[in-house]
Amino acid sequence: MSEAAGFGKHELGTAVDEAWLDEHELEIVRGRVPMVYVEAVPVRLDEVGRVTHVGLLLRAMADATISRAIVSGRVLWGETVREALQRHLDKDLGPSAFARVPAAPAPFTVVEYMPDRARTGYHDPRQHAVSLAYLVPVEGECHPSQEALEFVWISSEEAAGSAVSAEMTGGQDRIVRLALAHAGQLP
Amino acid sequence: MSEAAGFGKHELGTAVDEAWLDEHELEIVRGRVPMVYVEAVPVRLDEVGRVTHVGLLLRAMADATISRAIVSGRVLWGETVREALQRHLDKDLGPSAFARVPAAPAPFTVVEYMPDRARTGYHDPRQHAVSLAYLVPVEGECHPSQEALEFVWISSEEAAGSAVSAEMTGGQDRIVRLALAHAGQLP
Amino acid sequence: MSEAAGFGKHELGTAVDEAWLDEHELEIVRGRVPMVYVEAVPVRLDEVGRVTHVGLLLRAMADATISRAIVSGRVLWGETVREALQRHLDKDLGPSAFARVPAAPAPFTVVEYMPDRARTGYHDPRQHAVSLAYLVPVEGECHPSQEALEFVWISSEEAAGSAVSAEMTGGQDRIVRLALAHAGQLP
Amino acid sequence: MSEAAGFGKHELGTAVDEAWLDEHELEIVRGRVPMVYVEAVPVRLDEVGRVTHVGLLLRAMADATISRAIVSGRVLWGETVREALQRHLDKDLGPSAFARVPAAPAPFTVVEYMPDRARTGYHDPRQHAVSLAYLVPVEGECHPSQEALEFVWISSEEAAGSAVSAEMTGGQDRIVRLALAHAGQLP
Repeated sequence: MSEAAGFGKHELGTAVDEAWLDEHELEIVRGRVPMVYVEAVPVRLDEVGRVTHVGLLLRAMADATISRAIVSGRVLWGETVREALQRHLDKDLGPSAFARVPAAPAPFTVVEYMPDRARTGYHDPRQHAVSLAYLVPVEGECHPSQEALEFVWISSEEAAGSAVSAEMTGGQDRIVRLALAHAGQLP
Repeated sequence: MSEAAGFGKHELGTAVDEAWLDEHELEIVRGRVPMVYVEAVPVRLDEVGRVTHVGLLLRAMADATISRAIVSGRVLWGETVREALQRHLDKDLGPSAFARVPAAPAPFTVVEYMPDRARTGYHDPRQHAVSLAYLVPVEGECHPSQEALEFVWISSEEAAGSAVSAEMTGGQDRIVRLALAHAGQLP
Repeated sequence: MSEAAGFGKHELGTAVDEAWLDEHELEIVRGRVPMVYVEAVPVRLDEVGRVTHVGLLLRAMADATISRAIVSGRVLWGETVREALQRHLDKDLGPSAFARVPAAPAPFTVVEYMPDRARTGYHDPRQHAVSLAYLVPVEGECHPSQEALEFVWISSEEAAGSAVSAEMTGGQDRIVRLALAHAGQLP
Repeated sequence: MSEAAGFGKHELGTAVDEAWLDEHELEIVRGRVPMVYVEAVPVRLDEVGRVTHVGLLLRAMADATISRAIVSGRVLWGETVREALQRHLDKDLGPSAFARVPAAPAPFTVVEYMPDRARTGYHDPRQHAVSLAYLVPVEGECHPSQEALEFVWISSEEAAGSAVSAEMTGGQDRIVRLALAHAGQLP
């Protein structure tokens, strides 16, 4: 594994190193294999567990739009899916969100983003990503951090509607509807 | 619907009336149709959502044994599955358990108790019951109330083992293993 | 269990006896406990398992309308959920449907029909029914039998649309959308 | 993206090109990002959909053992999860297996293989792989092809037992047990 291979030298330990894969390397790898992603639809539940609200971020997306978005991000080498979920939830919703990563590892759906829009209906201009989508109850206060501009709670009826859909890109509006359906709360 | 029909007079409102179906009536109905039950496997999760412990009650069972048991009970006429789950969790684990009824209505498995042991492997001498089984994360303190004698947290490895299985009846040990498998934590 | 109890004499064996509960008895029981139902959304899959079409019956419904409907029916005393599913599929789709009852017992959703429309959004004027809903791939030819007037295959896009919804009652249009969402095929 | 980047020249189209990523390139990418895999547990069902048998291959594994194994393989760039599942099923079970890729995209569990055995309990010395595991009913005849030496149907009781587990590596015996639990057939 030399520099000629296009990758800088680095040590690979069991610890996850967010920084080890630089942008150039990432771009190369993205053209070769599907990337593993996780997706979280933050939800508020009532006292018997029914979804009442969906949490949406406002952020700059991969397709250069400013859009409503769910929590989404890459799983790193050596990182478990649960750790990745928790990391992205912490990063996007802040430290006092008290997001509950689900006990079951099976996602409610699998989303396949492709550069070709026609392939699956989910679109990412940068890559082919296979994303595991989870419904994540959030009990605390959300304070969008880093790249997100805003975070809002929207009622489940509104979240499934066309006005909200129009503000989302890449097919994430469909993920929200599938999440609501999984929770039995799709109108 | 007269008294000759074997049922006492009563008003059926939208409110759930725990008392309306007396023991005699219940016995009759139990011989005619399958009863709807809910089952909850109480679990403790670590900081990334992995099941670490399973909560078990010690109680007098329908088969006249004193056994380890999960939370289980009937869904009443007019009561939703979520309400029944919450009611039985409150009753069995006490008011400060903070049990989290899951957002998704689909159970992780469906358990079919029958008087005939050979039919499904799940046994209830009193009735044919179709029970929806849920994994329920519990965050607070559990204080067994009413009929339960004791409540203990057992590690997920132990809960899947034969020593604990031997203390459970009716097939509930198998429900615990299916719950752990659903959570990816079956050894 | 005498005749005075309002129920005729009969032997309860392990065999399921479709006829044992007469209409009068059924009406009484229906007012006392939730009934167990199964629901099947028949689907056609393409060569890689994607849902392409949803199968709908045209039939007289409990609310006295003639509506599009999915396969639905009661689980009898002593009958397993799988047996009930197969029996209702055979009855509604005919003997050459080759419906594939799923390997996993967990339904994709649980539907709670109540006489009170406002309670869950699912409505049955006759009873409180807790129905386990399954997605059932069908590979053969469907010939509606008994009470169904017609059976048609509708594309998954159409099945999720408002024109088809308007022809369904009791909330079954929502079950179809939840089924499509479960299959990742909700638009 | 030059040759200096360590990758040969090639066209990336929508068509999946099994050959485009050579062994050297694959080795490099494997050290940088988790690989996306699919896993299929082939099963025989009885007439009401209960799992009666599990299908196991005998093959040379990544850890250099000859072991019993389930169907498993990589998802290629541009290939959908369904296409990958179908491709690996065809390759491993032969053209007349009539394997039924499930309608729902959600796997029954997510398996995380790591070079470090202690991390998740699933082990692959070559890579970090995130594998989506599906239960796949098989209706035809299986003829192991390519790298598999043998294919056998084993009863679900046996498949969950310790004798079969001892012949499997990497944690695949646990995947079989989780699959049986998902189907309600774990003893």
